[in-house]
Amino acid sequence: MKNILDDKYFMREALKEAKKAYEIGEVPVGAVVAIKNNIIARAHNLTQTLNDVTAHAEMQAITSASNYLNGKYLIGCSLYVTLEPCVMCAGAIFWSQLDRIIYGASDLKRGYSLHGDLLHPKTKVFRGELEKESIDLLQSFFKSKRK
Amino acid sequence: MKNILDDKYFMREALKEAKKAYEIGEVPVGAVVAIKNNIIARAHNLTQTLNDVTAHAEMQAITSASNYLNGKYLIGCSLYVTLEPCVMCAGAIFWSQLDRIIYGASDLKRGYSLHGDLLHPKTKVFRGELEKESIDLLQSFFKSKRK
Repeated sequence: MKNILDDKYFMREALKEAKKAYEIGEVPVGAVVAIKNNIIARAHNLTQTLNDVTAHAEMQAITSASNYLNGKYLIGCSLYVTLEPCVMCAGAIFWSQLDRIIYGASDLKRGYSLHGDLLHPKTKVFRGELEKESIDLLQSFFKSKRK
Repeated sequence: MKNILDDKYFMREALKEAKKAYEIGEVPVGAVVAIKNNIIARAHNLTQTLNDVTAHAEMQAITSASNYLNGKYLIGCSLYVTLEPCVMCAGAIFWSQLDRIIYGASDLKRGYSLHGDLLHPKTKVFRGELEKESIDLLQSFFKSKRK
């Protein structure tokens, strides 16, 4: 029997994606998109690998989920991402009309929330899910890079 | 002999891209990226065709120019776009570190500039190049859709 899945479950899946980024030398950020307890997109940061500043985990997850649903609006969907989205990703989230975004760590330098209210008024935001795990992963990554 | 090319020349090329979007039923916005008087990327809005809210002309032009240069930073490059970038595209322009953006029409509903200063401090912005042509194309598009 399938257990009822909660935000922690989906954020753990996003963290698995972030770890994949870590392993290939990318800033470890991961994301999943879920609808009705099903994951329909998974992605991790690939900006170095693809030489493309637009290849953030959220952007790829949005494109992938739209592809899965065969529609550009992600109504009814939740986006889980380990780090607070940047301005670019917040803009994409706005256009996608996602129901909910749930993020782990706040981004005190590049987080969208530093620039006021960029999201669609109907998108609900939940902060701090598995925050410590997300921060630990990011800090471990930047520490290893400084060595 | 190659004439010295100016912003009007490159914006005309962006307008050609916008017209391609118009012809396939997409909101007519076009973009080109140039470096040292050479166009290295051309793109037009494909959000309907690709079912993807991230497929704005600017996003594709940035990805394409990065691919051409084999590097994710577009230092030394100018982005010409027929309509003021949205928040998402402004975020991508921030990350790309483009030298200059030149746009035609202002977007009074969705333009990034409604949200304060989202661009990189070193990116110079020029507004209003071939503004009338860009507006005419957009108005003609929306008029034809209302029929």
